[in-house]
Order: sequence, then structure tokens, then C-alpha cells
Amino acid sequence: MITEDLGKRIRELRQKTGLSQEKFALKIGMDRTYFASVEAGRWNIAICNIKKISDGLGVTLSELFDFDELQ
Amino acid sequence: MITEDLGKRIRELRQKTGLSQEKFALKIGMDRTYFASVEAGRWNIAICNIKKISDGLGVTLSELFDFDELQ
Repeated sequence: MITEDLGKRIRELRQKTGLSQEKFALKIGMDRTYFASVEAGRWNIAICNIKKISDGLGVTLSELFDFDELQ
Repeated sequence: MITEDLGKRIRELRQKTGLSQEKFALKIGMDRTYFASVEAGRWNIAICNIKKISDGLGVTLSELFDFDELQ
């Protein structure tokens, strides 16, 4: 599932920032519980929030999606 | 706005396929009116539908998002 692949990728990049889920969510002004569900791949997240996360991670959307996709 | 940038990019890639909005939407099993609003940048489209479009265009998500982002 793409939501799971994306969640894993976000977690990987967020961990590289050294911030906890809670601190990262606070930094980008996103609800902590919502952000946790995105990382867990449980949310069909929309583009405006994906962009908010990529900006917070300091990567482009193209970099954020640079992972092997399963069909 | 990211929805507008993404819509333009989808339109550009869809036009390269030689398919009309209607035929492309039909091909990927998406409502034509919904797809038109995505191309027009009027929809905060979620990842599962973005993935459906990128698959239909024959590009990866990383390729789909390979455009200059404004903040």
C-alpha cells in the first residue's frame, strides 16, 4: 500500500532529523495523533499535508517519493 | 499552491499520452469531473488517487513530483 510506503519513508526521514514524532508534529503545526497515523500508513493523506511534511523535513516532494513503489 | 502545480504537471504528462481528460479518466477508472478538477488545481487530492494517476501516466511518484516547488 502506498500509504504504508509513504509512512515508512516519512518516519525514516523524520528520524534523521533527530526529532521525536511529537516534536516534529509541533514544528510543522500538525496534530501529533494525526502525524503518528500518517507514519503508521493508516491515513490517505492529501497533498497539502504531504507538502507541509516535506517542507518540514527539508526535502522536495520528488525526494520524499524517491523509494521503490510496489504496484 | 501545490494543488495547482501538481495539476499543471498532471495535465502536461497526460497530454503527452495523447489521451483526452475523458479518455484518461476512463482508463484509470476515475470520475471525469473529479479528474478535471484535479488538473485545474482545485482539489486537495489524496495519495491513493495521486498514485492511481501516476500509474496511469506510467511514471513514478518521484517523477510526477519532479517540478520546481514554490514555498
